[in-house]
Amino acid sequence: MNTPMQKIIVTLPHHHYPIFIGKQLITDANLIKPFIQSKQVCVVTNDTIASLYLKPLTQLLKDYQCDHYIIKDGERYKTLDTFAGLIDFLLINNHHRDSTIIALGGGVIGDLSGFAAACYQRGMPYLNIPTTLLAQVDAAIGGKTAVNHPHGKNMIGAFHQPQAVIIDIDTLQTLPDREFIAGLAEVIKYGLLRDATFFTWLENNMTKLLARNQDALIHTITCCCEMKAEIVALDEKENASNGRALLNLGHSFAHVIETHTGYNQYLHGEAVAIGLVMAAKVSCAQTGLDQAAFERINALLIKAKLPTQPPSSIDPTQWLTLMKNDKKVRQGEIRLVLLRSIGQAFTQTCTSLDDIFL
Amino acid sequence: MNTPMQKIIVTLPHHHYPIFIGKQLITDANLIKPFIQSKQVCVVTNDTIASLYLKPLTQLLKDYQCDHYIIKDGERYKTLDTFAGLIDFLLINNHHRDSTIIALGGGVIGDLSGFAAACYQRGMPYLNIPTTLLAQVDAAIGGKTAVNHPHGKNMIGAFHQPQAVIIDIDTLQTLPDREFIAGLAEVIKYGLLRDATFFTWLENNMTKLLARNQDALIHTITCCCEMKAEIVALDEKENASNGRALLNLGHSFAHVIETHTGYNQYLHGEAVAIGLVMAAKVSCAQTGLDQAAFERINALLIKAKLPTQPPSSIDPTQWLTLMKNDKKVRQGEIRLVLLRSIGQAFTQTCTSLDDIFL
Repeated sequence: MNTPMQKIIVTLPHHHYPIFIGKQLITDANLIKPFIQSKQVCVVTNDTIASLYLKPLTQLLKDYQCDHYIIKDGERYKTLDTFAGLIDFLLINNHHRDSTIIALGGGVIGDLSGFAAACYQRGMPYLNIPTTLLAQVDAAIGGKTAVNHPHGKNMIGAFHQPQAVIIDIDTLQTLPDREFIAGLAEVIKYGLLRDATFFTWLENNMTKLLARNQDALIHTITCCCEMKAEIVALDEKENASNGRALLNLGHSFAHVIETHTGYNQYLHGEAVAIGLVMAAKVSCAQTGLDQAAFERINALLIKAKLPTQPPSSIDPTQWLTLMKNDKKVRQGEIRLVLLRSIGQAFTQTCTSLDDIFL
Repeated sequence: MNTPMQKIIVTLPHHHYPIFIGKQLITDANLIKPFIQSKQVCVVTNDTIASLYLKPLTQLLKDYQCDHYIIKDGERYKTLDTFAGLIDFLLINNHHRDSTIIALGGGVIGDLSGFAAACYQRGMPYLNIPTTLLAQVDAAIGGKTAVNHPHGKNMIGAFHQPQAVIIDIDTLQTLPDREFIAGLAEVIKYGLLRDATFFTWLENNMTKLLARNQDALIHTITCCCEMKAEIVALDEKENASNGRALLNLGHSFAHVIETHTGYNQYLHGEAVAIGLVMAAKVSCAQTGLDQAAFERINALLIKAKLPTQPPSSIDPTQWLTLMKNDKKVRQGEIRLVLLRSIGQAFTQTCTSLDDIFL
């Protein structure tokens, strides 16, 4: 079997844009060029990705003013300083506001360059070419852009939708195992939050997926992107409590884990995997998720080679307190995404957690 | 006569908000409180305004967590550094994303705090209380927010609409003459660009206006805000060439003057006044504006005590070159707002200017 290129449209009130999923898309001039409005382009990428994919991409754009801005690889460079450096670069190279940023990389590159595109002269177009599984199924879709602040992740940002998202699964072949596996946590999250059929498919196909089988990859990414596109279409700016907020399943726990361990012990997806187990555990205690479902969730994460135990360095009585610093706090209340069953997530105000984790 | 409070609604596709124009509004708790969603507020102001109006405002908000952030007075503090300082302050004081920023001051305060509100946790509400004439008739309306960059004004920003704009004309009584007069340049611009009747009213009432007569002020500000609200409603993000772009009448010239003189010789409104004369002169040469109209424009600006001559330090042959660095450049073309007659502005691509200014 050889799955053809998939196309999903993200439909928003004032903008709609396509997501393409397939092979050899980075070198497809006919696919990419229609999304560039003027004769100016700035490719933003990191040093790791640049050595692999920058040349093939920029060769398509020989008849453009095609600059590139390379940042160091890693979440710790997703800062306001790096953002300011990119803005300087755009101004120094005389990019007008109809120039296009092409984000070529993982979530850090997409978030940072999307935020620069949101703010440069009050908004310029950008094109997202995510190269990690995590970015392909989640971060690159839906227009959330941001940089981190010492006081918290994604504290400075904007909603800014791309012109298109181009997902070339060939880039996954060069992704280190640990990063690929981290992306699977977000994949499993989609099954959990609204698609029991997809969850079952993942249980049956995890081995293929871990082997990076191309058809399995395209099916997986397409399912996730379709779900994300539907959720974002209904709730672009995360105003509804059971809209976009559901995508944060596991994330309140994950952010505490990441903050508490200084962002260097766990990859985001790994922290999310632990967060999913914790959300499932709270769901068993507070919303009637049955134990068999909990076991399936735990088993699938283990099958995907993801961690499932919270770090022992976090005091089990402190979860609620630590979560109060998360930005998903409204008027001081903690709202958690929990599960009624596999495929059915909802948001609930949380009063107590501590007994569950002792 | 004693004009009652005026109310104008700015109607946008996904948001609408009121502009209130009247007296003693800063101390009107019943007016202000309904626009604050949670129990957290951060008033952003400068040292000059703080000494005059911070206390009366914060006294209304005693039952809120009401922090204040004071920046130094002046355009040179409208920077990414000041923005970062405000974001730090919000995080350190644990403001959630449903907290409300209240911008209390002129255009610098409104632009800077509006931009912080746009980006803090991807967007928090803000309330604009403009205290200068220029901000009341122009900067505070329409959701343009930004900070400056050494390479140009307003280069980093966002469109972010306030919850409400509260224009208390009492604040104009403490405004220095030079600043008040600078605001009149934007007032005259509105008459020029789409309301010949208002232009004539200004010719007949400039003396009253210069004396800061309250009824004249309310009439003037209401006319300007109504026009701006209509224009912004049709073209929120400045995509139409004859929409919001028309508000830039005189501004391409003004930006060159400001950049070339290092932002310390002219106030923005003063540069706009000169820009209006220059736009009128180009209009006489290129679009058939008659000489009598040019004389009326020049005369009204002089009556308002505004400057009308470009600085001799700018080489008259250099205007087109200097304007190419302006952000209103699309694909390298210079588009200027010009006049067919008083009350009729339009956008036109410009090929040559130099002969006009020699």
